[in-house]
Amino acid sequence: MADIKFEVKETIGVLSESAKGWTKELNLVSWNDKAPKYDLREWSPDHTKMGKGVTITIDELKKLRDVLNSIALE
Amino acid sequence: MADIKFEVKETIGVLSESAKGWTKELNLVSWNDKAPKYDLREWSPDHTKMGKGVTITIDELKKLRDVLNSIALE
Repeated sequence: MADIKFEVKETIGVLSESAKGWTKELNLVSWNDKAPKYDLREWSPDHTKMGKGVTITIDELKKLRDVLNSIALE
Repeated sequence: MADIKFEVKETIGVLSESAKGWTKELNLVSWNDKAPKYDLREWSPDHTKMGKGVTITIDELKKLRDVLNSIALE
């Protein structure tokens, strides 16, 4: 990922933290100076290293919200 | 990923479909015959090929649901 420029524009939510301090976060991330996208991903404590994840459109997020509200998670 | 065995146990929600028919889905996926995990990922139309994604614990899903319900997505 050395050639990819990224900037976390906004942290919307931190979902969990691992024993090593990596966090799984929903963020708005700008890739290569483009318009920020919603992004669900693991990050190192100082946010210089990223783990696996996916970018998500706002329409996908709405659908995901509706799906999560329609199932029993408790 | 040739060595990873996987099985989609349950499709919880389909969030979007690309022009090529790949879908972004929230599923319960069993990896290497282990207990299924929640998984947000892109899949080929026949679910034999997978794209980038993340596994998510139930606690992370609950947090994600709460985060999505707390922000304005409309």
